[in-house]
Amino acid sequence: MNHAKRLQGLKNLMQKQDIDALLVVHPANRFYLSGFELHDGQCNESSGCLLIRLNEPDWLLTDARFTEEARRHWPGEHVHVYGAPRVEKIAEFVKSLGVSELWVETHAMCAGMYLELAGMLALRQAPRLVEELRTVKDCEELARLRASCALNHQVYEALRPKLVPGVTEREVAWMLEKEFRERGAESLSFAPIVGFGPNGALPHATPADARLSAQTPVLIDMGGRLDGYCSDQTRTWWIGDNPTDEFKRTLALVQEAQALAIAKVAPGVGTDELHATAREFFARHGVAGHFTHSLGHGIGLETHEAPGVGPLRPTVLRPGMVITVEPGLYYPEWGGVRWEHMVVVTEDGHEVL
Amino acid sequence: MNHAKRLQGLKNLMQKQDIDALLVVHPANRFYLSGFELHDGQCNESSGCLLIRLNEPDWLLTDARFTEEARRHWPGEHVHVYGAPRVEKIAEFVKSLGVSELWVETHAMCAGMYLELAGMLALRQAPRLVEELRTVKDCEELARLRASCALNHQVYEALRPKLVPGVTEREVAWMLEKEFRERGAESLSFAPIVGFGPNGALPHATPADARLSAQTPVLIDMGGRLDGYCSDQTRTWWIGDNPTDEFKRTLALVQEAQALAIAKVAPGVGTDELHATAREFFARHGVAGHFTHSLGHGIGLETHEAPGVGPLRPTVLRPGMVITVEPGLYYPEWGGVRWEHMVVVTEDGHEVL
Repeated sequence: MNHAKRLQGLKNLMQKQDIDALLVVHPANRFYLSGFELHDGQCNESSGCLLIRLNEPDWLLTDARFTEEARRHWPGEHVHVYGAPRVEKIAEFVKSLGVSELWVETHAMCAGMYLELAGMLALRQAPRLVEELRTVKDCEELARLRASCALNHQVYEALRPKLVPGVTEREVAWMLEKEFRERGAESLSFAPIVGFGPNGALPHATPADARLSAQTPVLIDMGGRLDGYCSDQTRTWWIGDNPTDEFKRTLALVQEAQALAIAKVAPGVGTDELHATAREFFARHGVAGHFTHSLGHGIGLETHEAPGVGPLRPTVLRPGMVITVEPGLYYPEWGGVRWEHMVVVTEDGHEVL
Repeated sequence: MNHAKRLQGLKNLMQKQDIDALLVVHPANRFYLSGFELHDGQCNESSGCLLIRLNEPDWLLTDARFTEEARRHWPGEHVHVYGAPRVEKIAEFVKSLGVSELWVETHAMCAGMYLELAGMLALRQAPRLVEELRTVKDCEELARLRASCALNHQVYEALRPKLVPGVTEREVAWMLEKEFRERGAESLSFAPIVGFGPNGALPHATPADARLSAQTPVLIDMGGRLDGYCSDQTRTWWIGDNPTDEFKRTLALVQEAQALAIAKVAPGVGTDELHATAREFFARHGVAGHFTHSLGHGIGLETHEAPGVGPLRPTVLRPGMVITVEPGLYYPEWGGVRWEHMVVVTEDGHEVL
């Protein structure tokens, strides 16, 4: 991994914003910069953090459980192993380096830790600098995302013949999880949505005991984590040979909206424009009120990451960004249709994974 | 579930500590008091929170994704559905109820949310009141923990014949996860430890590609979540018919230390005394230096919860507490032995699950 290059990229951002010392605690950010411990417990900061400084050595701070692993990923002379009590020891170490003002990732740190640190150090709330850096993927990341998305396609292929009447949503969710795991995924990258019939229209459907009947739409939204990188795709299929006209029409609209939006993906285009493209197409067909969410999101080490692809806080696309494009239309009476692909912004346009 | 009784118990604790209004954001605490959404994403507070007040109605606050589910668990007239921006809307609502000082669970809230709330409301750091309440399990919780631990025993039974030379640690970890899931567990309750030979001595071993050879010790520490409640048991087996004398002796010491500590489990006994019992036994046999962790921990909606069972911050046992008792001895040259049971404190002693 290009950790040195990424650290340099981060320091360029820090310099622009006059940030001398940044404590990185978000597990995905920590992993991105160091390769150390992507996963973590409930308190994100528990297994360690990175102290990044503009003109001084950077440190990986962790506790004795992780000493060996830390040294595999970071120069041993700049691994600091702290004892207990954790927060106090971290603060003491940071002070001993002469850091006078510490910027922290408050979106990924417990308030308890923040308040304790603030009693010992001058703290500042850092903007999401590493997340900003992570929006543009390098070659190795693109290769991993490509492999992760390919696995997602394989799982859909394996799953399709298993969608037979009588199976429950929960069973399908477990089937797809097994397919991901047995084909090499570390885990699912999010709790899958498996919605039969009207359940496909629920924004937050947990797979439950509903049984599949013939002549029903099935919406599946799923993703796995492979080599650290997430996939996320949605498909909506009609089970049976007799789809209703309403389903056929809805599916055609969703797929056309998706194609129109994807056609616009290119460097320099705003993510709000992609969203508007789908929305305006739906509006022309009188169904915009059934499109109830954003068009997509960035994806990488996290399933949902910057940039957002919706009407708010637009981002101008740059080569190397990877986003999902997932328009959907929802009808509480009979279900929903969503279709989702992962799309890479290339130098001169885009590529659908 | 006895939500009304639990809320009353919480209010008794709040009254003693002069806490008028408490914002509960920790997912396990929220679930314990309401039955709403045990699971949650990375930012714990994202799916909703409870506002508990001494002499006023209690509220469940959530967003539109969860309206239906919230109403299944909480009186509809006291479900408040907030819009965006989330934290601002929550603060406005709390203020509109006339709350002048809000106590918050800073151990389970992002610093970002805390700082934003603090700009609009007078905040106080709440002690872990719900966690304190949760240390003593009621009948329904004990029934669930009993079922969860029984499942853990079943998985060990199913797993034992599959530990044959050639299998990898990673494969065993996946086998046991499948056993848990296919027998009804929602998930594993923690990442399992599967350590072959010397790997059993690593405090933080991630199952990897090591292959099992004959005449090797295998340490497995695993747990599942069933109906919300966690299990956690460790076993160490010798694979093959020719265990070394050192393994046999170490296993005998660990099991005897465990038996001695469990024999002491009863109301009124300090958790530090249990730990000291095991440690002193090991010291008499000259192996105390190889016992490198606490004797155990409370278990319930979380795998690790209060009370701790170690030398620091002792808790006096009360009927209804459930703890693990898991002495271990570790030798980097050949491996480790740990043996773990879940133990309920009863009115007149204890019961091993």
